[in-house]
Amino acid sequence: MIGIGIDLGGTAIKSALVDSEKGIIKQFSIPSDAHLGKDALLQRLIDVVKNAIAESTEKPVGVGIGAPGVISLDRITVSNPPNLPGWDIVPLADIITKGTGLPCRIENDANLAALGSSRFGIGRTYPHFIMVTLGTGVGGGIIFNRDIFRGAHGGAGELGHVTIDYKGPQSNSPTQGGIEAYLGQRFLSHFAAEQLSKYPENELTIKFDGQFEKMEPVDLYTAAVAGNEIAIDILKSAGEKLGYAIVNYVHILDIRTIIVSGGVSRAGDFILEPARKAALSRLMDPFKPDFQILFEAQGNDIALLGAGSLAIEIRP
Amino acid sequence: MIGIGIDLGGTAIKSALVDSEKGIIKQFSIPSDAHLGKDALLQRLIDVVKNAIAESTEKPVGVGIGAPGVISLDRITVSNPPNLPGWDIVPLADIITKGTGLPCRIENDANLAALGSSRFGIGRTYPHFIMVTLGTGVGGGIIFNRDIFRGAHGGAGELGHVTIDYKGPQSNSPTQGGIEAYLGQRFLSHFAAEQLSKYPENELTIKFDGQFEKMEPVDLYTAAVAGNEIAIDILKSAGEKLGYAIVNYVHILDIRTIIVSGGVSRAGDFILEPARKAALSRLMDPFKPDFQILFEAQGNDIALLGAGSLAIEIRP
Repeated sequence: MIGIGIDLGGTAIKSALVDSEKGIIKQFSIPSDAHLGKDALLQRLIDVVKNAIAESTEKPVGVGIGAPGVISLDRITVSNPPNLPGWDIVPLADIITKGTGLPCRIENDANLAALGSSRFGIGRTYPHFIMVTLGTGVGGGIIFNRDIFRGAHGGAGELGHVTIDYKGPQSNSPTQGGIEAYLGQRFLSHFAAEQLSKYPENELTIKFDGQFEKMEPVDLYTAAVAGNEIAIDILKSAGEKLGYAIVNYVHILDIRTIIVSGGVSRAGDFILEPARKAALSRLMDPFKPDFQILFEAQGNDIALLGAGSLAIEIRP
Repeated sequence: MIGIGIDLGGTAIKSALVDSEKGIIKQFSIPSDAHLGKDALLQRLIDVVKNAIAESTEKPVGVGIGAPGVISLDRITVSNPPNLPGWDIVPLADIITKGTGLPCRIENDANLAALGSSRFGIGRTYPHFIMVTLGTGVGGGIIFNRDIFRGAHGGAGELGHVTIDYKGPQSNSPTQGGIEAYLGQRFLSHFAAEQLSKYPENELTIKFDGQFEKMEPVDLYTAAVAGNEIAIDILKSAGEKLGYAIVNYVHILDIRTIIVSGGVSRAGDFILEPARKAALSRLMDPFKPDFQILFEAQGNDIALLGAGSLAIEIRP
């Protein structure tokens, strides 16, 4: 079976033909041109789907869309997506179905990354796992019995906004001390700049010459690989905070496989090893057996694979 | 239908005949005499069940036991219960069935309090809710689709050990800054003593005359009702911390009805109102509709009602 997976972002619409056995067969990307407004963007989405149907050797069974904003429990309506001007409450799935004839469901990005990992990634082996996506923001998806756990209203898994310090810093929510405020790209870079500015002789400090706003997590990672002790410490501190947050997830959900994905996680064991150590130092004993933190290596494709899986698995 | 509910504690074995319609019909309590060892206590439990059968007008359908320690996913085996000397890994449910002929399942106390509230308490109206039990310790139970959510391994809902401050105080676990370390009776009393000792003229300070170890949460509550500002502030501070922890539960589970039970919660709105306010100040907007913190008024009976419900609902 083939499903059409779409990643609807503020700058680009990515789409893919996803085969239930083979994964991504073909992949496309066009600019969102979100500034042209809601109706233009909806028409563009319909065109993307029609293009994917035309490119497919067999008829796709449905459309799955990863969208920003709040997704309704029935996965049809999106509310107030950030970065999409003019959108308020939009029955997106119904509009796509009307325009293309294919059934459609929408879901948030992090849940789709979790679903993608469950169907095509390292998560395949685990019926239950917690996905943490480390990127611009920090998102989460919970897979329970091989399906997305959505809670009572559809919003479960806001893992970046789980506090580990109620007096801590804020990211893009009223929650203080959520791990997005430590590990979100902008926040991690800001913290790194603060630390590095104490060390004028450090190679990273010299490299960015006061322009730390240009520093990305990958610069920290590269420096850490090269043995830069301050960079290693910065990533360690971030990893420990991730570890403390993971303890919260595990004590609430008793799901003991954690899968980390996204850009920041490319720092790999510079973050994940301190996270493991911190988590194991705080977990209650009964939760330690089988506890593991894994890395999803499939990168950006994982959410598209999840969107395609959502399409394939639509139930009427 | 009638089930036998048992609350196995270190000091007493409480038991009840629970009718699926009428709730508790008869209730019994005998000392555990746990110091006599495992075999004596197991025999005593079998006798308790036999006594309940003899006291019942119709044949009970099963036995549900609330036990300390780690409960296996199949609800048959308990491991390393604190306060029960000589117990390591005990297939308690099988032993009860062998000794009494009735099917049996075990479950932890907080999960049973949640189940009891779901079947006989304020939780009846809500298919999904989060139960927080405030007592000597702080426990939790998650009701999802009218059933206990147990996670992948059976231990979900350790809500007292969800950190809100990774540098915070410890209670009876390696987790720092879990709310048990703020709202557990001993910890709340300790915090209150610390605060009150700064106010030698305060009526509570005078009343306990340095012997704060005798102070119980109910003393704080009574003083708060009488207008004691320091007592009100102490309960407010505890309530705020509960509120921050609740935000973590809600952002992970997206279950928006919180039910609080247990001794400390008798402080009522002196704790719950600050908890509501703190939670609403930190919740992300999409989680605010329908958010509520309720109080389970049924007191200690709620866990026995849950144990009886567990018995009634045993599926082979």
